[in-house]
Amino acid sequence: MHSFQDLSKIFEEKFNIRHFPVHPKLLYDAAQYLLTFGGKRIRPVMCIMGNELVDEINPDSWHVANAIELFHNFTLVHDDIMDKAPLRRGMATVHTKFGDSTALLSGDVMLVAAYESIKNINKDYLQRILKIFNTNAMQVCEGQQLDMEFEKRENVSLEEYVEMIGLKTSVLLASSLQLGAVLGGAGMGNQQHLYDFGKNLGIAYQIQDDYLDVFGDPGKFGKKPGGDIASNKKTFLLIQAMNAASPGQLEELHELLKNNDENKIDKVTSIYKSCKVDQWAKELKHKYFANALQHLEDIAVISERKKPLEELAHFLLDREA
Amino acid sequence: MHSFQDLSKIFEEKFNIRHFPVHPKLLYDAAQYLLTFGGKRIRPVMCIMGNELVDEINPDSWHVANAIELFHNFTLVHDDIMDKAPLRRGMATVHTKFGDSTALLSGDVMLVAAYESIKNINKDYLQRILKIFNTNAMQVCEGQQLDMEFEKRENVSLEEYVEMIGLKTSVLLASSLQLGAVLGGAGMGNQQHLYDFGKNLGIAYQIQDDYLDVFGDPGKFGKKPGGDIASNKKTFLLIQAMNAASPGQLEELHELLKNNDENKIDKVTSIYKSCKVDQWAKELKHKYFANALQHLEDIAVISERKKPLEELAHFLLDREA
Repeated sequence: MHSFQDLSKIFEEKFNIRHFPVHPKLLYDAAQYLLTFGGKRIRPVMCIMGNELVDEINPDSWHVANAIELFHNFTLVHDDIMDKAPLRRGMATVHTKFGDSTALLSGDVMLVAAYESIKNINKDYLQRILKIFNTNAMQVCEGQQLDMEFEKRENVSLEEYVEMIGLKTSVLLASSLQLGAVLGGAGMGNQQHLYDFGKNLGIAYQIQDDYLDVFGDPGKFGKKPGGDIASNKKTFLLIQAMNAASPGQLEELHELLKNNDENKIDKVTSIYKSCKVDQWAKELKHKYFANALQHLEDIAVISERKKPLEELAHFLLDREA
Repeated sequence: MHSFQDLSKIFEEKFNIRHFPVHPKLLYDAAQYLLTFGGKRIRPVMCIMGNELVDEINPDSWHVANAIELFHNFTLVHDDIMDKAPLRRGMATVHTKFGDSTALLSGDVMLVAAYESIKNINKDYLQRILKIFNTNAMQVCEGQQLDMEFEKRENVSLEEYVEMIGLKTSVLLASSLQLGAVLGGAGMGNQQHLYDFGKNLGIAYQIQDDYLDVFGDPGKFGKKPGGDIASNKKTFLLIQAMNAASPGQLEELHELLKNNDENKIDKVTSIYKSCKVDQWAKELKHKYFANALQHLEDIAVISERKKPLEELAHFLLDREA
């Protein structure tokens, strides 16, 4: 049994290679670029952890983990084009550095490379793995589409927003765990609980992320607070504020979203507070977190094997929201 | 045994369905849009023909053919975004109708749908089919990248241009045939000859296409001649003219490419003629066509089984160049 931190290190070493040929240089340098940013590699490691939950690590898990990380980076490259994002983690995005067209194509080859990695696994698992991987891939695209549509809409219900966030960010966590579990021979019941653990964890994480962006300790999280407010991003907090605000506050909120008031962040934050959006977000996060832990609890393996996933859940969610 | 025309009709009927879910509507309507344009469906039908060359049709061929057509349309959607093309076959391109971001995502889901179709085949073939499919997919992206790079360069050698066209357009024809042959149980030697038949045929076809754009009978081909010249597109003819032109003609050619002379098409055509580019193109096409037919000849199956492919080759290439 390995901890998340151990597996993260092992995966990073394996992943830290050139994944593409040399020629055409521009295309494949663009495809390689984002992969070298490093990071915790949460998703591929969750695949290995899903595998180790039920058995010793099946070497095929590394192929699938590799595919998951390639897929995740493919979505980042294409999303950044669509969002016209200049920076990712403080670095120029792929399209900023290589141009939109090469970036688009580089995303395409990253997706193909993901499937090429999957291809290497034992053929007895290949169809089941592809089915889960494809379903997840479609859902992540659906999530991105809904996200773009919601950005243009004035009103989005909490239910719609949870659906979108689930698709855009949580199904990949859930699927990564499930893919590993399938390779470990898990039964359908355990697969489903593990999937639901990942999905609920992902939603809880997103709520925490939205909360910390506004209410987090800037010293601890290294970002100026209110970035989401400044960019008018729809978040759990904004959606709830729209629900809970008085008619007067709602009008003020709409005004603030339309104009670039120099105290916009403070003013929106103060509306959030007076609508108790902060308290609401904490409670909602805890609800999803508790759901996640319940599904982990319900997996029919000895509790010793669940420890690394439990630790990971606390590592990801035990921040100040 | 079936003719190309028979198989084209059968495939079209099978393919003429909704390939995507309903929600999110915009995303999946965009993904479906181009698929309904119809057409000869050359690539998927070549997969079935590759299969029937060696055996009765393996039902799995239809899954792979379906994947090939989805893949081909994915490349068209993304290429049109990169090329900023407003129209395809006289209709608005996907990004013109649905916007760049939704078009980009719709291409992504088309590629995933292609893999979902492949997933359905007998697991004993799955790895080999994926390997060929992935290699081809990477190469098509490489071809598009080189094409974009060549458009910005003044000088491109014939060798480079043939490599690019081979990747961008011919490997998919070649792979489609090979994928079908693999599903029919063809040996490696036959697979290679069939692949080379498709690759040479594709290059011959492209040379013919470039020739007809300038020298074709406008009444027969329904397009005004010289579209490629008007848009400064690099073609076999332009590449060869650059090689064969006198210093004076070369200077004139560069001038014509830079400025929008109202008689540009006539003037470039006249340079082509005086450099004998038309004759050269006919000969080059015939060289690749003869190569293709030789590879077909070299496939170790009874000649009766090769007839439909031979007919297809003549159907595609027996135009006036």
